[in-house]
Amino acid sequence: MSNSLSNPNADRVLSPRLRNKIMSAEAAAALIPSGVNVGMSGFTGAGYPKAVPAALAKRIMDANLNGKNFKIGVWTGASTAPELDGALAMVDGVELRLPYQSDPTCRKRINAGEMEYLDMHLSQVAQFVWFGFLGKLDVAVVEVAGILEDGRLVPSSSVGNNKTWLDQADKVILEVNSWQNPALEGMHDIYYGTALPPYRKPIPLLKTDDRIGEPYLRCDPDKIIAVVETHTPDRNSAFSAPDENSRRIAGHILEFLEHEVKKGRLPPNLLPLQSGVGNIANAVMAGLNEGPFDNLTAYTEVLQDGMLDLIKSGKLSCASATAFSLSPAALSELNADLARYRERIILRPQEISNHPELIRRLGVIAMNGMIEADIYGNVNSTHVMGTRIMNGIGGSGDFARNAYISIFMTPSQAKGGDISCIVPMASHVDHTEHDVQVLVTEQGLADLRGLSPKQRARVIIDNCAHPHFRPALMDYYKRSLMHSEGKQTPHLLDEALSWHLKYLRGGQML
Amino acid sequence: MSNSLSNPNADRVLSPRLRNKIMSAEAAAALIPSGVNVGMSGFTGAGYPKAVPAALAKRIMDANLNGKNFKIGVWTGASTAPELDGALAMVDGVELRLPYQSDPTCRKRINAGEMEYLDMHLSQVAQFVWFGFLGKLDVAVVEVAGILEDGRLVPSSSVGNNKTWLDQADKVILEVNSWQNPALEGMHDIYYGTALPPYRKPIPLLKTDDRIGEPYLRCDPDKIIAVVETHTPDRNSAFSAPDENSRRIAGHILEFLEHEVKKGRLPPNLLPLQSGVGNIANAVMAGLNEGPFDNLTAYTEVLQDGMLDLIKSGKLSCASATAFSLSPAALSELNADLARYRERIILRPQEISNHPELIRRLGVIAMNGMIEADIYGNVNSTHVMGTRIMNGIGGSGDFARNAYISIFMTPSQAKGGDISCIVPMASHVDHTEHDVQVLVTEQGLADLRGLSPKQRARVIIDNCAHPHFRPALMDYYKRSLMHSEGKQTPHLLDEALSWHLKYLRGGQML
Repeated sequence: MSNSLSNPNADRVLSPRLRNKIMSAEAAAALIPSGVNVGMSGFTGAGYPKAVPAALAKRIMDANLNGKNFKIGVWTGASTAPELDGALAMVDGVELRLPYQSDPTCRKRINAGEMEYLDMHLSQVAQFVWFGFLGKLDVAVVEVAGILEDGRLVPSSSVGNNKTWLDQADKVILEVNSWQNPALEGMHDIYYGTALPPYRKPIPLLKTDDRIGEPYLRCDPDKIIAVVETHTPDRNSAFSAPDENSRRIAGHILEFLEHEVKKGRLPPNLLPLQSGVGNIANAVMAGLNEGPFDNLTAYTEVLQDGMLDLIKSGKLSCASATAFSLSPAALSELNADLARYRERIILRPQEISNHPELIRRLGVIAMNGMIEADIYGNVNSTHVMGTRIMNGIGGSGDFARNAYISIFMTPSQAKGGDISCIVPMASHVDHTEHDVQVLVTEQGLADLRGLSPKQRARVIIDNCAHPHFRPALMDYYKRSLMHSEGKQTPHLLDEALSWHLKYLRGGQML
Repeated sequence: MSNSLSNPNADRVLSPRLRNKIMSAEAAAALIPSGVNVGMSGFTGAGYPKAVPAALAKRIMDANLNGKNFKIGVWTGASTAPELDGALAMVDGVELRLPYQSDPTCRKRINAGEMEYLDMHLSQVAQFVWFGFLGKLDVAVVEVAGILEDGRLVPSSSVGNNKTWLDQADKVILEVNSWQNPALEGMHDIYYGTALPPYRKPIPLLKTDDRIGEPYLRCDPDKIIAVVETHTPDRNSAFSAPDENSRRIAGHILEFLEHEVKKGRLPPNLLPLQSGVGNIANAVMAGLNEGPFDNLTAYTEVLQDGMLDLIKSGKLSCASATAFSLSPAALSELNADLARYRERIILRPQEISNHPELIRRLGVIAMNGMIEADIYGNVNSTHVMGTRIMNGIGGSGDFARNAYISIFMTPSQAKGGDISCIVPMASHVDHTEHDVQVLVTEQGLADLRGLSPKQRARVIIDNCAHPHFRPALMDYYKRSLMHSEGKQTPHLLDEALSWHLKYLRGGQML
């Protein structure tokens, strides 16, 4: 039996039974009715279905043109790409979207009040579906890298919630993408030991490189109603070199980590790293690549260029994630030598990559970006000026709450200095003061461990705020200290959100 | 060897070596210098040291009268009693207090800006001390029920952080309280399997009644510098019968739980219950006692009167907690039959009772009180009008984030109707929208699962707000929907905190 994709030129659909279900994306999309909830694959632009969502969007457009209302619920791993979120949002085809997205068209609709968006902790999605808390999952549309003769599925460049979608959906549509490297086979670790309470057991993962599951996804073949063949790249975006601010932030973090090792509060090879996506995260990875630490490990959501470089240089011995998010250049590098990289990379379901139990046990060092923090250390990761959603909370909460050290980072100002990223009061709170141990901007690092709110305020203003905003922040804090009714977390309620208001009205916070 | 307190009239200090260290509370207090951090026992008014803190307070007063500055850091399990927090706060002897407190004198000093207060998740305290994040722990002052001949300690009516204090402090002062029932011996389960990352292993607890440790606390006898004998009751406060609002809230919760069982989203005996302290929590327990559920279990922080009643009636088969918090009447009941109750009660360290890994694995139903929630489901548990701290976050975050279902409850209004507990924007956020699945007031229950912020707003206003405030809330929401810059979480920033401001200025929110 040909239970491997070992021959790269061979067909990717090796199961004869499923070969019979091969059809066009349009035919597959026609099997999705209005009003259903659809679980789609995809995480940070990797492993999302490339053909069926766009075909479905066209079908929705036709329905709209015929005066019919056609909307679906769209559940994913995390963000996808224009062919999925963009296409469906363009035709106003999404009733409710969860749990994370970053598509501009989608974002516009959400912030215009035209689309319901349920922003969720990424670790909770799978279990909430199992619990029955989100309603019924009708259809799954999942990209895979291949189908073995016995029906097992070779996962694609992300795992996300695919295990749960395949288990829970009534009907399954598979996209088999022959563009994905067949050598992905064997890289994944799909854990099938989860259960519902009261039958849950400890998850037997002790180290980042432990394999606790199997390399394939299972799916009842009777549920598979269509197989669509594609040959389309993931939407990998180009890597931009770290800018000056990012490099400074990375420098502060590296100095902090070295200091913690010296003080005996971190082992010489640190603890498993989690790192959000973006320029700052890549700068931190670049810094680590030139830094003193060896035998690093990562337990994170997304594998970016910076981490691949660390693997290449031998600094990072293992990276566990749920998805890739690489530049085209990094992807070429990965594909050219995938067999070697595969030994150091494990892709897992996001319920495992982001699991509170595992993040706390491993003692992850969490590094996440943010929109703003207030002078007491409450962090806003999602809502610009308190109301306009940027992307979503993603895994930042899963990691920040359970981390050994939770670090949040941002440039100290935005929009060319019109906005201060350190504000009197956060206009929306995603991470409370209790879950933020370290704040970093290009100005410096505030170590908040063991500090009361008032002690934090001074350190945050002094170390993190931009000098342009520092005096006004200190003035607000001092007047609050004088006039606030309670002085545990001093505020002047008539001024607390005035910086945001001033920006909305006049384009400048000061 | 007499390694048991089995003879209730026998001495409680059976170790000859430690008998030699018996001294007065004053002599013991004289061993605590200014400037140190002191880890004290005590959780919700149970098992706190009864003599040394007050003696220390007098010593501090003398120092103050002599013009000397004498302050210490006070770390506990949670809240204690006037003899500890009250006494030390009265003489202004506390530099920094953590992680939770509820003493009125302390609260006054904190809100006057005279005492630093670090409000922490209760599950994180022990590990942060081990990590070295809170500085050095110099002295432990821990109440025990007795000392065995081999030096092992019989824990008292709370466990809290005692294991960590005894392990981490340089010097240890024990208070042996012969008022505590000697039959407490054997009720505790002290888990010594914790470790620092990267050496952590799964915590082998699968059911609420699993015993994974030993019934005694260990302590290096060389560190014990004093043993003080006391015979003093815990400060148990009288139980007040549930009022009408509490009974209504309990009724809504019971109806919800029955509905969830019917829908197959909860097993017939529910899942382990966590319940905060207070009138509403007791009302829920009273409701469960008359309700249809059998074989209930509890995995919680505190064992209150209501849970004891459930054990007595046979409805609750096992309660795991870290402390008692009983009325004098319930305590008499418990003491009269402790051998029987002991089979159904386990007291654990708070790092285990509140551990994210265990709360998530067990699928706890979390029920916690709050000060206010906003129309989008963000919850304020700690700060009245955003700045004045009430008590602290306690374990509410540990439970809410990791619960199967996280329920927050409050009467819909306070101060005779001057304050609405449902507000446009929470003036402080302890639990974000992501961690609040159900809100309940006497008006009704809002099931927020699967709802976007806008959908939540309508359900919360309709079901939970008091009719007196409902039109103004709906008016705010509708105008926000019209004029908010972003419409994911619509707000009018110049009005968002105006209800609180109006109350501060005129004594009424409307």
